[in-house]
Amino acid sequence: MSERLIIVGGVAAGASAAAKARRMNEALEIVIFEAGPYPSFANCGLPYYVGGEITEREQLFVVDPALFGNRLAVDLRLNTRVTGIDRANSQVTFTDAEGVPGTLGYDRLVLATGTEPLVPPVPGIDGDTIFTCRTVPDVDAISARLTSVTEGGADRPEILIIGGGFIGLECAEQLIGRGCRVTLVELAPQVMGPLDPEMAWPLEEALTAAGGTVITGDAVQAIEHSDGRSVAILGSGRKLPFAFAVLGTGVRPNVALARAAGLELGTTGALRVDSQQRTSDPAIYAAGDNAEAVFLPTGTPVNIPLAWPANKQGRVAGCNAALDLAGAPADDPLRLRSTAINGTSIVRVCGMNAGGTGLTEKQATQLGRTVAVVYLGGPHHASYYPGAKPMMIKLIYDPADGLVLGAQAYGEGIDKRLDVFSVAIRGGLTVEDLEELDLTYAPPFGNAKDAAVLAGFAGANARRGIAPGLAPMDYLEGRGLDDATVVLDVRSAREFDEDPLEGAKNIPVDELRQRLDEVPKGRPLVVVCASGQRSHLAQQLLRHHGFQDVRNLYGGYRLLSQLHRMAG
Amino acid sequence: MSERLIIVGGVAAGASAAAKARRMNEALEIVIFEAGPYPSFANCGLPYYVGGEITEREQLFVVDPALFGNRLAVDLRLNTRVTGIDRANSQVTFTDAEGVPGTLGYDRLVLATGTEPLVPPVPGIDGDTIFTCRTVPDVDAISARLTSVTEGGADRPEILIIGGGFIGLECAEQLIGRGCRVTLVELAPQVMGPLDPEMAWPLEEALTAAGGTVITGDAVQAIEHSDGRSVAILGSGRKLPFAFAVLGTGVRPNVALARAAGLELGTTGALRVDSQQRTSDPAIYAAGDNAEAVFLPTGTPVNIPLAWPANKQGRVAGCNAALDLAGAPADDPLRLRSTAINGTSIVRVCGMNAGGTGLTEKQATQLGRTVAVVYLGGPHHASYYPGAKPMMIKLIYDPADGLVLGAQAYGEGIDKRLDVFSVAIRGGLTVEDLEELDLTYAPPFGNAKDAAVLAGFAGANARRGIAPGLAPMDYLEGRGLDDATVVLDVRSAREFDEDPLEGAKNIPVDELRQRLDEVPKGRPLVVVCASGQRSHLAQQLLRHHGFQDVRNLYGGYRLLSQLHRMAG
Repeated sequence: MSERLIIVGGVAAGASAAAKARRMNEALEIVIFEAGPYPSFANCGLPYYVGGEITEREQLFVVDPALFGNRLAVDLRLNTRVTGIDRANSQVTFTDAEGVPGTLGYDRLVLATGTEPLVPPVPGIDGDTIFTCRTVPDVDAISARLTSVTEGGADRPEILIIGGGFIGLECAEQLIGRGCRVTLVELAPQVMGPLDPEMAWPLEEALTAAGGTVITGDAVQAIEHSDGRSVAILGSGRKLPFAFAVLGTGVRPNVALARAAGLELGTTGALRVDSQQRTSDPAIYAAGDNAEAVFLPTGTPVNIPLAWPANKQGRVAGCNAALDLAGAPADDPLRLRSTAINGTSIVRVCGMNAGGTGLTEKQATQLGRTVAVVYLGGPHHASYYPGAKPMMIKLIYDPADGLVLGAQAYGEGIDKRLDVFSVAIRGGLTVEDLEELDLTYAPPFGNAKDAAVLAGFAGANARRGIAPGLAPMDYLEGRGLDDATVVLDVRSAREFDEDPLEGAKNIPVDELRQRLDEVPKGRPLVVVCASGQRSHLAQQLLRHHGFQDVRNLYGGYRLLSQLHRMAG
Repeated sequence: MSERLIIVGGVAAGASAAAKARRMNEALEIVIFEAGPYPSFANCGLPYYVGGEITEREQLFVVDPALFGNRLAVDLRLNTRVTGIDRANSQVTFTDAEGVPGTLGYDRLVLATGTEPLVPPVPGIDGDTIFTCRTVPDVDAISARLTSVTEGGADRPEILIIGGGFIGLECAEQLIGRGCRVTLVELAPQVMGPLDPEMAWPLEEALTAAGGTVITGDAVQAIEHSDGRSVAILGSGRKLPFAFAVLGTGVRPNVALARAAGLELGTTGALRVDSQQRTSDPAIYAAGDNAEAVFLPTGTPVNIPLAWPANKQGRVAGCNAALDLAGAPADDPLRLRSTAINGTSIVRVCGMNAGGTGLTEKQATQLGRTVAVVYLGGPHHASYYPGAKPMMIKLIYDPADGLVLGAQAYGEGIDKRLDVFSVAIRGGLTVEDLEELDLTYAPPFGNAKDAAVLAGFAGANARRGIAPGLAPMDYLEGRGLDDATVVLDVRSAREFDEDPLEGAKNIPVDELRQRLDEVPKGRPLVVVCASGQRSHLAQQLLRHHGFQDVRNLYGGYRLLSQLHRMAG
């Protein structure tokens, strides 16, 4: 009798585990218990189906369920909910599609139970005008509701999005695209929590520019349903009537089964696993959003629910479980290992993209870790080639050894710059290494001097001590500035007159050598231009002319303006 | 009296050297001698101006010449040709814009003389219907000629492009875009020489599909001009009449001055430099297309004329020359160093992109270096999100230690995958590291399992011994196959019937377990599907069922079809 691998969950991690286990072991019996009606569906595509960008429902099904049987020889049991793990007897209990309970023994178990939604404990939140967007039945329900609302005469229905993470933002974009009046409410002071606030804010601006309303730092405290109308009441007292709402208030690892079975959880609340994705029970593996991972920039445990790490961990778990049952030793060279993840992510909202990889400044602060920061803006491809659009990079590195720790970006073409930084973190590269990267360049694709490389220049020059920078947030909040500090704006007189920087003295960079006597001696200087490039030259010029304490405002007046708009 | 840095050449490397030298040293006198009329222009943009994608001539001028004086305090001498270097007296001789000769002493010299065109010694090639595309005056002349030809009544003039490198390909695309009938003639058997032939060929296919004609393996042997008509006669005897021709037959380092001055040249014919970009004369630096670099994947000297390395090397040379003159010691921490380059490049031709980074298979063969190869195709973003287009990756790695040595790609979205591989090479990553990369993913941007990562899977699994691959070129040419080899096509019966693979036996992967007795025992097997994915599963299945020698055809039938088309 062949040995049996049971996998609980059949979407990203679970399906990957099954496929890899089969490729590693033909003799194995593989059973997947999937609580929902569809295996391996395109969760990341759900908002785009709501919005009609993905037109065919079938496109959401990445793998035909029949293939699990024919191709992978996997016994896929849909609509089957695992209700318990009996570790003593190596079996799971479950309720099948017809509601009939059963038990099945396992030789190895992979838990790929994903997440459960964090539903805020708000009166009325269980109303039938409130949807999640996590499954195909969810988006079927949203689509049906949208159709009934618009057919009912509301050509621009009011939609409430509760939560400003990936799902909330993507649904907001898509429902605006369908002509809805969308209001997004986020409890935190910013949307897209994984990013630093100033790097996420352009998403809010884009949503607003597209006709949406974004309310941050406020929360839905009650929802009233009456006469077929729903109204959300916010903590601020504000009332928002809506035709329907989408809940995107985040998720937590779904570890109920594991906890009940006494498996060890980590500090993040997710399942603790070793590098082979094994839990505290050597017969049980875990992979995906319900499992912890190691965060590459810090070596600390994290739980970051994202599609690719889930797939990757599922592959590792499936491989090792299958090898166990083929009698492979613990150090078999075919075993796969998960070392660490960067948490690389990206989101598009109404024409604006934002994303990040690795450590954020926020996280560094929480960890009490000293990091250095660079902001570097630029066009996404050669500025002289038509269609160049702006992007902004925030690079985070260790000032002691120069190691790249994280990067965030917004604007056009940021996916490839974030990929560059993600690989740089993986490769243990420093800001000095970034100075030498050879990136693809032809005018339609990039820049001879790309912003990703220029960010390396800035970081490396800061480390060399020749180009100290000042973060615009510090500037705005006066950190590191005193009354003696002089702000020198080196933009042209015309730029300065059109859009003056308050409190700054304007000496255009091209006149600076001739007007050095106008620069106050012996006082700390902050130099500013539009982007940080001319002010870098001014900084060097001033240094060589005996000015000791000169800092360059990273990101320049352009980034400063954004922060001003952000501050309201 | 201040010390003087002279820079010969004021475009990419020269302008970068001047700007960096100034930032490092305010006391220095800096003189640029530029032979042409424009400093720091957008050479890479020239073809796009010819084609009208770049509409304003001013856009070609990246830096206003006045800025050299006002901003950088650089004495920019345009239309001034340096005629000699007198090392004994530390001076250069030159002829100024008025043709008046002069001499000027230097304390440090940076040679940024770039390249000179390789003009084949063909009778008639100096005719006035034949243009190069290297300078703004060149494209002015081409534009004027195009206008006069079309105004003369030829609404679809015949244009000859001689040479299929970057310039030739980009000009071909752009002139097709202007409605010309373009014929491109390339001496080598392929266009885009830096790439392996099968990775460059899609460019030819795209050019042809757009109405162009591509002739490879043939050369212009004579050009006859008479009665205002020009005709090229090829080695094959073919005659090609043309209204005008663009020469893109490549370049060589422009080292005439350096050679005459007795500076040491490297094996590549370019100037030998140390990591500080210093030539054999410590007072003379060289940077850009006229200088050698170290090739990162091999550690050997190369001369690869590309915009970004030129800029990068110019920065290094300018920095170190300026530090010399500030009295900095040889090991001053502010000195910059050039370690090595990858030769990352990309080109777009009529909707098809192709590019590469690091070592090619061709180069490996020339060097006698054993490399392993993987081909991996996939959509450029989630296939279920609208607009996904195909791309193909060729990954080259060291089979002994798994180090990524090079990558090439064609299709959509390849710039970011090439950047990923370029950074991976810089970081010393292995194919096993690629398995773990965290790349940006949301449906509009990429894939949960990206082809760049899957290429790592394939390479790592080949190294683990569980998934040996076969390159399609080897398959076509019968390398590693013998009469006993059985080819098993595991596509569906329908796919196979519509487009059968000659000589293959079809057993669809979904029926393979049931039909194992049809697979010949004890014979080498090659498994094939459309892309290489299903055949990978079939390979694993067969291995576990006792078939010892099973290879997976990388890139599958799709790549094989391309190679068939390519073979003509």
